[in-house]
Amino acid sequence: MKIALAQLNYHIGNFEANTNKIIDHIKLAKNRGADLVVFAELAVCGYPARDFLEFDEFIELCQSSALEIAEHCIDIACIMGLPIKNAKVAGKDLYNAAYFIEDGEIKATVKKALLPTYDVFDEYRYFEPGIQFDCIDFKGKKIALTICEDLWNINDNPLYVSNPMDQLTLQQPDLMINIAASPFSYSHDDERMVVLSDNAKKYNLPLLYVNQVGAQTEIVFDGGSLTFDRAGNLLNEMKYFEEDMRIYEVMDGDILGHTPIDHKPLSDIEQIYGALILGIKDYFEKSGFTKAVLGLSGGIDSAIVCALACRALGAENVMAVLMPSKYSSDHSIQDALDLVKNFGCMHEIIPIKEAADTFDRVLEQAFKDLPPNLAEENIQARCRGLILMAMSNKFGYILLNTSNKSECAVGYGTLYGDMCGAIGVIGDVYKTQVFELARFINKDGVMIPENSIIKPPSAELRPDQKDSDSLPEYDVLDKILFQYIELKQSSKAIIAQGFDEALIKRVVKMVNNAEFKRYQTPPILRVSSKAFGMGRRMPIVGKYLS
Amino acid sequence: MKIALAQLNYHIGNFEANTNKIIDHIKLAKNRGADLVVFAELAVCGYPARDFLEFDEFIELCQSSALEIAEHCIDIACIMGLPIKNAKVAGKDLYNAAYFIEDGEIKATVKKALLPTYDVFDEYRYFEPGIQFDCIDFKGKKIALTICEDLWNINDNPLYVSNPMDQLTLQQPDLMINIAASPFSYSHDDERMVVLSDNAKKYNLPLLYVNQVGAQTEIVFDGGSLTFDRAGNLLNEMKYFEEDMRIYEVMDGDILGHTPIDHKPLSDIEQIYGALILGIKDYFEKSGFTKAVLGLSGGIDSAIVCALACRALGAENVMAVLMPSKYSSDHSIQDALDLVKNFGCMHEIIPIKEAADTFDRVLEQAFKDLPPNLAEENIQARCRGLILMAMSNKFGYILLNTSNKSECAVGYGTLYGDMCGAIGVIGDVYKTQVFELARFINKDGVMIPENSIIKPPSAELRPDQKDSDSLPEYDVLDKILFQYIELKQSSKAIIAQGFDEALIKRVVKMVNNAEFKRYQTPPILRVSSKAFGMGRRMPIVGKYLS
Repeated sequence: MKIALAQLNYHIGNFEANTNKIIDHIKLAKNRGADLVVFAELAVCGYPARDFLEFDEFIELCQSSALEIAEHCIDIACIMGLPIKNAKVAGKDLYNAAYFIEDGEIKATVKKALLPTYDVFDEYRYFEPGIQFDCIDFKGKKIALTICEDLWNINDNPLYVSNPMDQLTLQQPDLMINIAASPFSYSHDDERMVVLSDNAKKYNLPLLYVNQVGAQTEIVFDGGSLTFDRAGNLLNEMKYFEEDMRIYEVMDGDILGHTPIDHKPLSDIEQIYGALILGIKDYFEKSGFTKAVLGLSGGIDSAIVCALACRALGAENVMAVLMPSKYSSDHSIQDALDLVKNFGCMHEIIPIKEAADTFDRVLEQAFKDLPPNLAEENIQARCRGLILMAMSNKFGYILLNTSNKSECAVGYGTLYGDMCGAIGVIGDVYKTQVFELARFINKDGVMIPENSIIKPPSAELRPDQKDSDSLPEYDVLDKILFQYIELKQSSKAIIAQGFDEALIKRVVKMVNNAEFKRYQTPPILRVSSKAFGMGRRMPIVGKYLS
Repeated sequence: MKIALAQLNYHIGNFEANTNKIIDHIKLAKNRGADLVVFAELAVCGYPARDFLEFDEFIELCQSSALEIAEHCIDIACIMGLPIKNAKVAGKDLYNAAYFIEDGEIKATVKKALLPTYDVFDEYRYFEPGIQFDCIDFKGKKIALTICEDLWNINDNPLYVSNPMDQLTLQQPDLMINIAASPFSYSHDDERMVVLSDNAKKYNLPLLYVNQVGAQTEIVFDGGSLTFDRAGNLLNEMKYFEEDMRIYEVMDGDILGHTPIDHKPLSDIEQIYGALILGIKDYFEKSGFTKAVLGLSGGIDSAIVCALACRALGAENVMAVLMPSKYSSDHSIQDALDLVKNFGCMHEIIPIKEAADTFDRVLEQAFKDLPPNLAEENIQARCRGLILMAMSNKFGYILLNTSNKSECAVGYGTLYGDMCGAIGVIGDVYKTQVFELARFINKDGVMIPENSIIKPPSAELRPDQKDSDSLPEYDVLDKILFQYIELKQSSKAIIAQGFDEALIKRVVKMVNNAEFKRYQTPPILRVSSKAFGMGRRMPIVGKYLS
């Protein structure tokens, strides 16, 4: 039996595009001799469709798309994911399901049993868990088809009280297929490899796994679909961050023509780079935009975002706006211009001194004789935000936000100022990782000016300001943040690791006090296991532990 | 048996305050002769604690608070809600539970079975459903204790496949107690009355229901705890939008000293008014702030927000900033000043012409010779946002957002301009309801200037601009929005109701296109069954139906 795995980039709610893409790959797989072609979880509508799923019309379009696709399943069978209605009176209205289509007809329906509802996942918000488990009969073989999370309950601390494969295995299947929409993080690939291999081994079955690829706003799918033999050995991995289709021949419990290979993982930074490029690209393509604007300060963060945008969209589509203040150093402008030259993007220089001075004057009376403070610093940052949004409004450029995860975490940024933007490009990348990204981008020659990398980070909002005036050094800060954000450790537990108590309390307090700011930040491309945004839902008005 | 229902205002994560408040009410109930005092769902930690629940330290503090409270349960028993650890290996790590405490000891634990995971609710994100149902034995009686949603599965289209009371009733309980944290909406009270009455009737038992009161960021709890006789008749309702404690004597299946009463519902507008006042008050009190700032345009929206803020915080704590532009009419300033005079709040007048002109000049070169468009209008709105944030930063005022639900819906507002703020006061109140609120506030005398109510709404960002240039009349618009947002009707279905096709398509498209703006708006006080924010999660990059 020849099985094609189609690893495709879907667009949420774009039924026409998704349906056409699926039909094209059914034809392609048929031409290449496949008996069965497998598409990902919720391929028909894209993932995560969120509250679109609550609109009846949306579900009806899923169904009519499936019927249109079914017409093309002649001389080839197909498996694909879609939401379907729950025909029973009790329970949620929908299932996260998969159709098995043969001879133009829906021959079997599989319903996802384990519904991830944590981090960025909200599946139990929409779906009733499946409780009936049957293998699919195809060409005299039994296929144990599961949907994503259904294979993920085999670790030592299972999140669910049941395990679908334990049921399916009773029917003595010949192979396992898992269709997924498994969001990327730079630590996810290793975990996935282990979980899938453990499943193949435990059930003593070959396993074919097909994932989505592409970005949907902040969520990136990395592809990397996998095949394992019944001993849990990896046989093949498909492309990362790209569409791909491959055909595997399964016979008598073996996947022919493949011998075990070693997983050669991309480095974390290489993965992050790939995810961010794809994230930017898909944000623009799927929104129907082509041109980006960003503020280029001469510092490392905006340099990286500019570099990524040029690579993702083409330099000719990127407008870098330099907005020096009276506190900007000469080298800042030069560093920014060097970057513009290296990448060849558009640029404008629009100083903010005049605008900031105007506000200082206009506010003089209301401010009485109070000494300058954060208010005056924020005015400058907000003048920049205003100028960038004006450029966006005038020319239809989409504003890229350039805040990194470290500063998002501690609130070292100005709401409605440098926190503006349609999409946060590096908001899930710690400052120390930003430096690594710069080195990665420069690996074949200097593109990011060396000076942007080596100079001490500064917001340049008052004379001789440096980040280190307000924050611990980033290598220390990022370690603390990782413990608190990714690992959810208490202050006490972090202090017990040997960090300074006063420092930890200060950092944790800064993170907590910035919740109200983060609530209003743009969606942030997710590359870690715990990004700010939908995956981290903290109260704003609450008394925080410290 | 005398049972006290304690309807209290908790503060998420403020264990000291919550514990002290609970202990105080245990003492008070004991002094008043109660045998049992009942506190709400998750009273110990506040609701919704969101991802605080994922921190071990948070759960440990819940437990230690409960043990401290237990010490005070001598000669009085107590029921209270809190999250507890799941001791089993499989399943989520927590239960949404209630302790029954007697003689200083935890005698019984009840676990919530039905976990609301829709709209603003995320309970399955954190909790494993309870599957074991036992009545509580107290003074020779059996109490069927359930937690909030556990009683809500008795309508025609049940959301869950099981029903806890169907299990508990097998043990022949003597009465039902339900502890809740049931978020307010202006349509929720009627529904609640029916559901609870239906339960009392169905199980032929008296029912005591205790709810939380108070606001937690955007979520408001209205209190209104209820008692029903075994025939489902309402016997008593506790205060709305205020703390309250009452004692009921239950004997032989009757609640003594009460006869059936009619529910006298507050009008929708009265409820909305109460919820918004409480919402503002608690946002400030629980955040530790006292003073608010807002932009006062002379229009109806900011007038209402100013009025509500003065009532909630005291006029002496409210700073209204008038920021006329060159397009502001004279009457706008006068209307705003009239309001300031009526309420007695602070004010400043800070014209924006100079700042806006500066930006026009600074951007002239970059804008080339392109004609004025939305960019120039937004510059004005953003100058206002900048000034308000400067006042906020300089004086520690918290900025109140003044956008109404109609304009949030269609995106008729400027991101980082009039969409700034820490909390959206009327972002869940349609424009037509804003007018009703004005009439309600003026019912005992003109406080909101009549002119602010009767003049045609305008953003005043270009000469003679009116909202009706860009939008349908609000009475039509709001009807369409209600169908699309609250009722999730498709364009097709709305058109079938007799609305103009082109109009519906335009409105729905405006709503969809504004998702990226709404993603970055402040939290909005929720008063309807479908507010923007956590309860409505739409994809940003997605192809919308129309």
